[in-house]
Amino acid sequence: MEASNDRLATSLRFRQGQLSILDQRLLPQQERWHDCADADELIAHIHSLAVRGAPLIGLSAALMLAQSALRGQDRTGLLAELERLRAARPTAVNLMNYMDRMRSLIHAGANAQELLRGALAIFDEDRALCARLASHGLTQVPQGSRILTHCNTGSLATAGIGTAIGVITHAHAQDRRIEVFVDETRPLLQGARLSCWELARAGVPYQLICDNMAASLMLEGRIDLVLVGADRIAANGDTANKVGTYGLAVLARHHQIPFFVVAPQTSIDLECPDASAIPIEQRSADEVRGVATAQGQMIWSPDDAPVCNPAFDVTPSELISGWILDNGCWTDFATYRAAC
Amino acid sequence: MEASNDRLATSLRFRQGQLSILDQRLLPQQERWHDCADADELIAHIHSLAVRGAPLIGLSAALMLAQSALRGQDRTGLLAELERLRAARPTAVNLMNYMDRMRSLIHAGANAQELLRGALAIFDEDRALCARLASHGLTQVPQGSRILTHCNTGSLATAGIGTAIGVITHAHAQDRRIEVFVDETRPLLQGARLSCWELARAGVPYQLICDNMAASLMLEGRIDLVLVGADRIAANGDTANKVGTYGLAVLARHHQIPFFVVAPQTSIDLECPDASAIPIEQRSADEVRGVATAQGQMIWSPDDAPVCNPAFDVTPSELISGWILDNGCWTDFATYRAAC
Repeated sequence: MEASNDRLATSLRFRQGQLSILDQRLLPQQERWHDCADADELIAHIHSLAVRGAPLIGLSAALMLAQSALRGQDRTGLLAELERLRAARPTAVNLMNYMDRMRSLIHAGANAQELLRGALAIFDEDRALCARLASHGLTQVPQGSRILTHCNTGSLATAGIGTAIGVITHAHAQDRRIEVFVDETRPLLQGARLSCWELARAGVPYQLICDNMAASLMLEGRIDLVLVGADRIAANGDTANKVGTYGLAVLARHHQIPFFVVAPQTSIDLECPDASAIPIEQRSADEVRGVATAQGQMIWSPDDAPVCNPAFDVTPSELISGWILDNGCWTDFATYRAAC
Repeated sequence: MEASNDRLATSLRFRQGQLSILDQRLLPQQERWHDCADADELIAHIHSLAVRGAPLIGLSAALMLAQSALRGQDRTGLLAELERLRAARPTAVNLMNYMDRMRSLIHAGANAQELLRGALAIFDEDRALCARLASHGLTQVPQGSRILTHCNTGSLATAGIGTAIGVITHAHAQDRRIEVFVDETRPLLQGARLSCWELARAGVPYQLICDNMAASLMLEGRIDLVLVGADRIAANGDTANKVGTYGLAVLARHHQIPFFVVAPQTSIDLECPDASAIPIEQRSADEVRGVATAQGQMIWSPDDAPVCNPAFDVTPSELISGWILDNGCWTDFATYRAAC
């Protein structure tokens, strides 16, 4: 039970003014919580990927500012912390938006209690967004659906039940008798490590597969629906997401399987006209040469193997059956643009 | 330099009547050779996957029988060894074919020298098959091609330069100025561990990718050709190969990229009318839950995660641009059937 100023999420706790985070690097083998003493400690956790998920990073930073204010940090100190937090993950748009909201409050002379209310409001809004996504998404999940998902888009990454996985757990709770295939999502294994853990906790029947197995399951008629999240949606509906998403969209089209993106409207970037304007981050070679988990690091390729490691890919709008947003499900992005 | 009765391959040595095998489980971090004292030692290496690759398993078994004969094993003992070897890997058709050839020699009263010549002939034929595949394959590799390949189909799996990777290394040696993208090939990582090692030794420029990255490379126009091997080709051209192959074929068709299967005619199974008659082996869950390499075993999903682990998939004939066989390159399998 949450006290009025406390908030509990799967990977974040804020109780009596103390922020704690679940170390996502160690899941699912270990569930270790860290109390964050100050902003710099949280920043270190963001850099190390102990805290991941764009909404979650933003939420934890907002709550950290409230914690600092409640402990007597002055306005100058708060603004300095805010700028350091805002720069902790340059690509996470939510973090920047939430920090800008907190900065406005500080500039308006908010006291500690007012900053606390501002941070709690951000948390509550994110949780409510997830619930709305799940509700709209349910309309696209027929009874008995066998759903394929990619990466982790669940309660670990948000204040609520998540985006694509939020739709899945909600459909399960509504007794849609779904089954889920979870792509392991190389190289960082967010599917194998995090989505499996979440689905097991929620009691959703699932099977883990390697990313290269989805095609043959589709050919055998064992997948009815693909649900994925989004890192950024361009103005024409082109959608950037974890690498592997685009291939699933092509496979879904070939097998005539519906392919839906689930994301809040805050993931839409109208400044980006289309896919060509979305930069794709290249990450370090060692991620592909092997793996790093709670049990340590392992390299299985030649130590100096040349690697190509794009972290994201972009799915063209025309391969997407629909966008499940917090204001409804849209099968044509131009219609959404015209209406909103 | 091979003496007349010695044979050297990348992962197999037969010298002065002694068979040695390279432990493929430890590659690329360690290159450890094992002398095989007797048939049962070789069988243990086949079971443990120290020896892998259908042609290589068959070759090593034939040479082991020659070794036993040279060391004085009698006819009864040889026939018993032969049956144990023949059962060491039930799905490897080459092993059964080669053992049947050796059994015919024994039944015909062959002495040790004659069994040795029989085993060496099998080795030499396999090496020659690879050379012919490479020669026919070269016709499909334009100058400057950027080639995607999957799993390991190189010299580690055969007596010669391999099948799909044989075409690649031959094209490189012929100065076609190719570049290669290597799928890591989850779950057993034959691409990351073995193909990278082989391509580096051959000096072929390559980059390692995760299996889910091929689609975005195709979209960006960075792949010109896909070359894969085959575990079994049905009478209508449907082709079973390492899981992930079918998805690449769909992606290649979507992006209008040529997709070729490279295999000897001994991989064609005319008893199998089409894909539906090819059984797909389900392997153990722990392969997908994590990984086992030279450095040990690691599980990164929940320990009890339910898993779907098909080891192979089947690509329908209509998605295959052509079959590069040891008697030529065929773009229509019905034409091949009519001609051969």
